[in-house]
Amino acid sequence: MRPQVIVNCAMSVDGKISTKERRQVRISSEEDLARVRALRLECDAILVGVGTVVADDPHLTVKGQPKERQPLRIVLDPQGRTPSTARVLNDWAETLIVTLEGTKASWHSVSSVGLGKKRIDLMALMDLLEKRGVRSILVEGGGETIFSFFQAGLVDRYTVFVGSKVLGGKTSPTPADGEGFLEKDAYSLKLVGVERMGDGVLLSYERA
Amino acid sequence: MRPQVIVNCAMSVDGKISTKERRQVRISSEEDLARVRALRLECDAILVGVGTVVADDPHLTVKGQPKERQPLRIVLDPQGRTPSTARVLNDWAETLIVTLEGTKASWHSVSSVGLGKKRIDLMALMDLLEKRGVRSILVEGGGETIFSFFQAGLVDRYTVFVGSKVLGGKTSPTPADGEGFLEKDAYSLKLVGVERMGDGVLLSYERA
Repeated sequence: MRPQVIVNCAMSVDGKISTKERRQVRISSEEDLARVRALRLECDAILVGVGTVVADDPHLTVKGQPKERQPLRIVLDPQGRTPSTARVLNDWAETLIVTLEGTKASWHSVSSVGLGKKRIDLMALMDLLEKRGVRSILVEGGGETIFSFFQAGLVDRYTVFVGSKVLGGKTSPTPADGEGFLEKDAYSLKLVGVERMGDGVLLSYERA
Repeated sequence: MRPQVIVNCAMSVDGKISTKERRQVRISSEEDLARVRALRLECDAILVGVGTVVADDPHLTVKGQPKERQPLRIVLDPQGRTPSTARVLNDWAETLIVTLEGTKASWHSVSSVGLGKKRIDLMALMDLLEKRGVRSILVEGGGETIFSFFQAGLVDRYTVFVGSKVLGGKTSPTPADGEGFLEKDAYSLKLVGVERMGDGVLLSYERA
């Protein structure tokens, strides 16, 4: 069975995950941050796009946990742009960088694999991860990466924390960017939870 | 006292108010549509930008109500692009078209006013409406118009219905487009209501 795919993000009341400058903005409440930590620990892998690595330089580890309990970190990086100084390459957890086939890039002591010719083949990635025993993947962003998982029909659960700020901006990143769906192709979800958390709300969805 | 400004919209779970083609998409549930009708009747004016008039050609009237109970319809139309065939120009309710000063455009039996030189002067509009006895304005979109009200610091209440579809799209309209805020200028709201309505959730905010 392919790994379960969980998308988690935090957006402003007007649907933005960061400002127009792509600066990381604190949207989540304290309670929500604690929830995300627990969610990360439940998952076998945490996945982001290289845009997030370049913009935010996240560790993608769970604080206070030993290396053997850390989820596998996965970076979707078609052209191999992950900087050699990126925190995601540190030795606090294992990392897998996924590029396009034929991309010539390698990182010291971190494994990489080429999947797909024009865009990363997410089905092939699912196969590979299934073989490695990964049962669940937490997709944390950004908007292009999240959209690609919806487009591939792979999202099983979606949780979004809606914070109480307005960020605005025609070009500000949203939870699902990319080329977008036509109305007939819109991905339908089923609302399964509504929970107020501090100054925001956590909305939980499953595949419809 | 200036009129109270209420912004109301419906967005997908990924923060879009329509598809990338700017096609109107049914996001609201039946309950939410009934709520919006009641909200329109409570307000003295309903306001949209000309982009919404061109894309959706709305009536902006409340069904089943006589002309004298209909809110004033206001279109923000800097360059005077409202087509002479637009439904918002019909005689079911009164209409005011707001252009830039010096815009040469007029519409048969509908009044218009020029306010502002480079962008529509919303403060001058508030003054004008206050003098006309308008106590509340419902701003229904689109994203550029809503952002301009946030940017002018004029939004008193914000309600957003979050429907359970993913629309995606880097260029799809969102509740607040425009140039966007820097983090330090983000407009802060206070969450005052969370209500599940059919397959979606209504979130209500007041100025923080």
